[in-house]
Amino acid sequence: MPPFDVSEGDPFGPHNLPYGVFSRSGSTERTVGIRLGDHVLDAGAAAAALGSPYVSLLARPSLDALLSAGRTAWSDVRRALTAWVTVPAHRETLVPFFHPLSEVVLHLPFEVADYVDFYASEHHARNVGKIFRPDAADSLTPNWKHLPIGYHGRAGTVVVSGTDVVRPSGQRKAPGDAAPVFGPSVRLDIEAEVGFVVGVPSAPGAPVPLSAFRDHVFGLCLLNDWSARDIQAWEYVPLGPFLGKSFATSVSAWITPLDALEDARVAPPARTHPLLPYLDDAEEEPGGYDLRLSVALNGHTVSEPPFRTMYWTAGQQLAHLTVNGASLRTGDLFASGTVSGPGEGERGSLLELTWNGRDPLGLPGGERTFLEDGDEVTLTAWAPGPDGTRVGLGEVRGRIVPRA
Amino acid sequence: MPPFDVSEGDPFGPHNLPYGVFSRSGSTERTVGIRLGDHVLDAGAAAAALGSPYVSLLARPSLDALLSAGRTAWSDVRRALTAWVTVPAHRETLVPFFHPLSEVVLHLPFEVADYVDFYASEHHARNVGKIFRPDAADSLTPNWKHLPIGYHGRAGTVVVSGTDVVRPSGQRKAPGDAAPVFGPSVRLDIEAEVGFVVGVPSAPGAPVPLSAFRDHVFGLCLLNDWSARDIQAWEYVPLGPFLGKSFATSVSAWITPLDALEDARVAPPARTHPLLPYLDDAEEEPGGYDLRLSVALNGHTVSEPPFRTMYWTAGQQLAHLTVNGASLRTGDLFASGTVSGPGEGERGSLLELTWNGRDPLGLPGGERTFLEDGDEVTLTAWAPGPDGTRVGLGEVRGRIVPRA
Repeated sequence: MPPFDVSEGDPFGPHNLPYGVFSRSGSTERTVGIRLGDHVLDAGAAAAALGSPYVSLLARPSLDALLSAGRTAWSDVRRALTAWVTVPAHRETLVPFFHPLSEVVLHLPFEVADYVDFYASEHHARNVGKIFRPDAADSLTPNWKHLPIGYHGRAGTVVVSGTDVVRPSGQRKAPGDAAPVFGPSVRLDIEAEVGFVVGVPSAPGAPVPLSAFRDHVFGLCLLNDWSARDIQAWEYVPLGPFLGKSFATSVSAWITPLDALEDARVAPPARTHPLLPYLDDAEEEPGGYDLRLSVALNGHTVSEPPFRTMYWTAGQQLAHLTVNGASLRTGDLFASGTVSGPGEGERGSLLELTWNGRDPLGLPGGERTFLEDGDEVTLTAWAPGPDGTRVGLGEVRGRIVPRA
Repeated sequence: MPPFDVSEGDPFGPHNLPYGVFSRSGSTERTVGIRLGDHVLDAGAAAAALGSPYVSLLARPSLDALLSAGRTAWSDVRRALTAWVTVPAHRETLVPFFHPLSEVVLHLPFEVADYVDFYASEHHARNVGKIFRPDAADSLTPNWKHLPIGYHGRAGTVVVSGTDVVRPSGQRKAPGDAAPVFGPSVRLDIEAEVGFVVGVPSAPGAPVPLSAFRDHVFGLCLLNDWSARDIQAWEYVPLGPFLGKSFATSVSAWITPLDALEDARVAPPARTHPLLPYLDDAEEEPGGYDLRLSVALNGHTVSEPPFRTMYWTAGQQLAHLTVNGASLRTGDLFASGTVSGPGEGERGSLLELTWNGRDPLGLPGGERTFLEDGDEVTLTAWAPGPDGTRVGLGEVRGRIVPRA
């Protein structure tokens, strides 16, 4: 039967079942959807038709109710969904609630509370250090191996995949210039990242230990942290990135639950420095994820960043984020920072791929250093699933348009 | 009649009328309140009793509906409220809707969307430069006079005045130490600031010019940006403050509408550097505000920071915040950064008041460099009002407690 005959190799088969929010063409009504192959299941309507108790979590205009329901509910709902799409007896009932992906609009699936961006790839941090501080004895700052460096970004400009990105304007000043000039950014970049979505809040003054990561984090998405390198370079001392980042951050429409990624868990790289107890994951379950990212520029793959090479895990990031007593809210989003592997073809930003513009990328449509108007960037990824399957992480896509 | 017989010198007389959200003792129901003297008027109930069309904006559990209603509505509602509390014919009707301040609980009056903190006092920035970079030729970074430096903070940990602040823990490392240590912050500080509350959103890609400031910003509050200096010093290179700030930010319970501060508008300090057009306020209406802040530590005044000395105005901050195309949401909060004047008794942080701990403050209960457990900090302020009155800005109060 059409929605169910997903091929065995499909990365969105019944072993995946990511969550999103959609509306049908011509309607403004948003509701939670589950992806199966090239279809979306209207999960709330399906729950109602099957008399499921989860209708209260799924017949909703966002994932927020499900996110806040907690780990046991997440597992129970996933088990129910798996049964719906795999037990033949449900098929006839469910067919009317499947819609082809091509006939729906996908929306930002949850309300972003606070957005934090980390800097967790050692390869990325070292590349940035070598580019901007070529004479430094160490390409890493002294704190880098002791804590996952992070900062708060702008939650209100997180947009869903497919949203055009208006080229930002701002101040920039080359080292030799007497004064800054104003205009559209001329060094517009991408950062290929993975974002983690917090479901369960925490109380002020109550840090979330490494062992409680899975009690709070529901799932992950792909994320493109668009970056205007020229604006960032002039503004960021001493309080960090601001307008160079805040114009837009794109996320994939599908949130993959951590429960779908059990087979992708891996140990993080060997730790080269002793860690303070709240970050020491030597005795914890593996905190890394083997996610294989791919970056395409105007349809041509330019990089394949391996997430398993990230030095700091998402669990360590969450433990650090809360160790000062900061509380979590449902919808908090924290991102990994640019994913870059050791190889030249594994770098997650144009800054690194072109070595700050020195080595342009040769593409069929012409070479590139940074992004030009009309360029479209697409991040995709997959992870190993059960029995040799692949778990697809969807995509985050965005096109650069000039300011009107 | 009791609620109306406010003395002429009362900074919360009918010329002020700030907005808050309260619940009555023993009730959990929150609703919009207007302060008059030592009373709160239940504005929604009053509107209903008087048949006012503004009941839909005021009979609400937060200020969010009023904030998003826009500048014309803000003026209209304020005109109505002024009539209610000044026209004797309304008095008998309204008496039941007044409650003594001592019998209500005040709440965070709006949902904080994004929180941005600026660094707009030249005196503060120069003091910080002199303390941390004593050998630098210029105590300001090269960008300081060209743009209002800012960064995003944590919206989810903005708390209302009166909320206890749990001393944060974190990593710190003195320059001579071999490795960082973990523990409660030993350099816990305050930052006396003013916060501006955005009412009307803006669209992505559409900057808010200086001239449109009043179309978007509803009012202001007092704000204490608690800062753990030891945590901040170790973490902040290269991406800015994070855990040194994110544990708590306290705001006053009362939001003073800009319409109440017309008599406090002043020109900002003379500009020493040419400004790019989007920040050039030479031809604009005065963008400064003559707010007289006061900082008390355990009841003893330790500083009186003058807000009129701030180099960058709130209008410039908003123009900068949006010039890259970043959009605004109802409830966005942006703060001035520490308010410090030129005088030694006008500094808005203990870092500056004690010159990084070198010169302890003598207080009746014992000297202080940074905050100890049990210390209570209270920021208050007033501004010149019409006809020689004072407009009170309420207070933001917080007590330091050890982690349980």
